[in-house]
Amino acid sequence: MGLAANEGDGDGVKLVTFGEGAGRVGVLEGEEIAVLGVPTMREYFERGGADETGERVALAETRLRAPIVPKKLFHTAGNFREHKTESENVNWSHDIAPWINFFQNVDAIVGPDEPVIYPEHLTEELDYELELAVVLRKAGKWFSPEEAEDYVGGYVIFNDLTARDIQRGEMRSGVFSFCKAIDTFCPLGPWIVTPDEVPDPRDLRMELRVNGEVRQRSHSGNMSVTIAEILSNFSGLGYSAGDVLSTGTVSGVAGFKSPEERALLYLKPGDVVEAEIERIGVLRNPIISWQAGHGTPPPPRLRPWGEGV
Amino acid sequence: MGLAANEGDGDGVKLVTFGEGAGRVGVLEGEEIAVLGVPTMREYFERGGADETGERVALAETRLRAPIVPKKLFHTAGNFREHKTESENVNWSHDIAPWINFFQNVDAIVGPDEPVIYPEHLTEELDYELELAVVLRKAGKWFSPEEAEDYVGGYVIFNDLTARDIQRGEMRSGVFSFCKAIDTFCPLGPWIVTPDEVPDPRDLRMELRVNGEVRQRSHSGNMSVTIAEILSNFSGLGYSAGDVLSTGTVSGVAGFKSPEERALLYLKPGDVVEAEIERIGVLRNPIISWQAGHGTPPPPRLRPWGEGV
Repeated sequence: MGLAANEGDGDGVKLVTFGEGAGRVGVLEGEEIAVLGVPTMREYFERGGADETGERVALAETRLRAPIVPKKLFHTAGNFREHKTESENVNWSHDIAPWINFFQNVDAIVGPDEPVIYPEHLTEELDYELELAVVLRKAGKWFSPEEAEDYVGGYVIFNDLTARDIQRGEMRSGVFSFCKAIDTFCPLGPWIVTPDEVPDPRDLRMELRVNGEVRQRSHSGNMSVTIAEILSNFSGLGYSAGDVLSTGTVSGVAGFKSPEERALLYLKPGDVVEAEIERIGVLRNPIISWQAGHGTPPPPRLRPWGEGV
Repeated sequence: MGLAANEGDGDGVKLVTFGEGAGRVGVLEGEEIAVLGVPTMREYFERGGADETGERVALAETRLRAPIVPKKLFHTAGNFREHKTESENVNWSHDIAPWINFFQNVDAIVGPDEPVIYPEHLTEELDYELELAVVLRKAGKWFSPEEAEDYVGGYVIFNDLTARDIQRGEMRSGVFSFCKAIDTFCPLGPWIVTPDEVPDPRDLRMELRVNGEVRQRSHSGNMSVTIAEILSNFSGLGYSAGDVLSTGTVSGVAGFKSPEERALLYLKPGDVVEAEIERIGVLRNPIISWQAGHGTPPPPRLRPWGEGV
C-alpha cells in the first residue's frame, strides 16, 4: 500500500518527538532515534538546531508523539482550486476564494497513532482533510516571496478534521473555528522532514485512506500558488520559529459528495485514517468513541449552532 | 476622565508583567511592584500562584508589558446583542449569531502604551472593539456552566482592532482572521485583575475613547449570556492555564455607522485609543504610522482580498 517508498534519498532528516510526558526530541535513523540535546521541538527551531547527545533509543521501545506543538498553527485554504470546484457539488454557502486564513487550536493536536475522540453529542458529520504543512525555520514578518524559502524548516502532514454540520452552523455568522478545533481534532505528524528530503514541494503525491480505501488522491502540484507566496502573504501576521502553516486540502472530502455518498463516507468510531504524502510519510489515526476515550457515555445531544444545519 | 476610581476595594490584586526582554511578573501595589518568583505570567497560572521575592520595583522606573502571552486567545462574539443590532445599520453580510468563536494571533499582542503600527498598504478602515476578557486560572475541558466559576483566574481588557475592509473581503469565503491578526493589532492589558476585585462581572461599566472622545459606552450587564455559559460552551476545545477568552464587543464600532460617520471615525496614525472597564482599568495605545514604526515608507498598496470590498 501507499504511494512510494518513504525512505528519503536526500541529505535531510526526519525530526521526531517521542516518549512520555512532554516527550523528547531526536532524529529518526532507520529503526533508531538519535536523541538531540534540546527539550522541545519548538526550542530546536528557536535555537537553530541541536547536537546529538550520543544516546540512542529503539523506535520499537518508544512511541512517536506529535512532532511539534507550535506557538501558532496557521490554516490557509483556497490554494487547491479543485477543492473549490468540488464545493459547487453541494452549493456550498460561500466562495472558497484564495487567501483564506485562520488559526487552529494548538491544544487539539494529537500525534501519529493517537486516537481522535468522536464527540457523538456534537456532530454526525466528521470529515477528513489531507493537508501538506510547512514548519517555519525561524521567526520573521513582512517578507517577500523571494525571501520565503529561507523560512522553510521542514514539512509535516496535517489531517484537518472537520465537523461539517457544526461548520455550516458557524458559517451563518461568516466565521468558523469550533468545527475544526474540538479536542483531539488535529492530527499532526508523523515527523518533520527537512527541506533537503523534499527538493520540490510541488512534486508530491498525496493520498488519504479510510480503512485502506482511498478517499483523497491528488498532487501538491495542483496548488494554484506557491508555498513561498503563501508564506509571504501571511507574514504580516508574524511567524515564530516552529510555527506550522498548512496549505489547504485537496479534493475528495466527504462533505462535498452527494447526500447518499456523504452518509457512507463520514468518519465513525472504529475507522482508521491514513494521511500520506510522498517523501514525508503516513500519519495514521484511529477514530474512537466518546465512551472509549473518556470511559463514560457521551453527554446529552447539544446543538448550540442550531438544529438541522 | 474615566468611569470611576480604579482602585480596587476587594481583596484581589493586579498582576503585572513589566520590564524589558520577556519581562518579569509582579503584583502592583500603589506606585510599586512586588516582584514574584516566577518567570512568566503563564507559569504563574500553571503553578497555581507564586511567592513574592521581597524585591520591589518603582512603577515609574519600569514599563508595563502585556500582562500575559497566553497559549491561546479565544475570540468569542455574538454575546452583546446590541452589536448585532448595530450591524443592521450597514446591512452586514452575515447574522452575528450567538456562539461565534475563533482564535487570535498571540504574536500580535501588544501591552499598555505600546504602539499599534498602521499598515497603510493593507487597510483604510482600522476599527476599535472594546472587550472584557477572562484569564483561565487552570487547564480543563468539557465542563458545565456550574463548574465554570472555578476556572476564572482574572479579568483583562482587550481592544480587538479590526481592518473592516479586509474583514469584508475575507468573509466572502465565510471565515475571517487576517483582519484582526495583523502585527501589533492585539492590545491586551493593562494588568490582570483577580476575581476578588470584580465581585460581579455583569456589573461593569465599559467605555472606549479615541483622543478623549467617547466612541463606545456600554455595560457588561448587556451581555445576553453569562461568562460561565461561554466558558462551558467552548470548553470542548480545551483550555490551558493562562488562556485568555474574550467576550465580544459592545455597540459603537466605527464600521457599523453611516458612510459619512465611518470616514471620520476610523482610526488614523496619531490617534490614541483608551479602552476602559470599571474595576479593571484603562488600556491606552497610540496608533502610529508604518514609517514611524518601521523607519521605512509602507510597501506598495496590496489588496489580496480584492479591490473595493
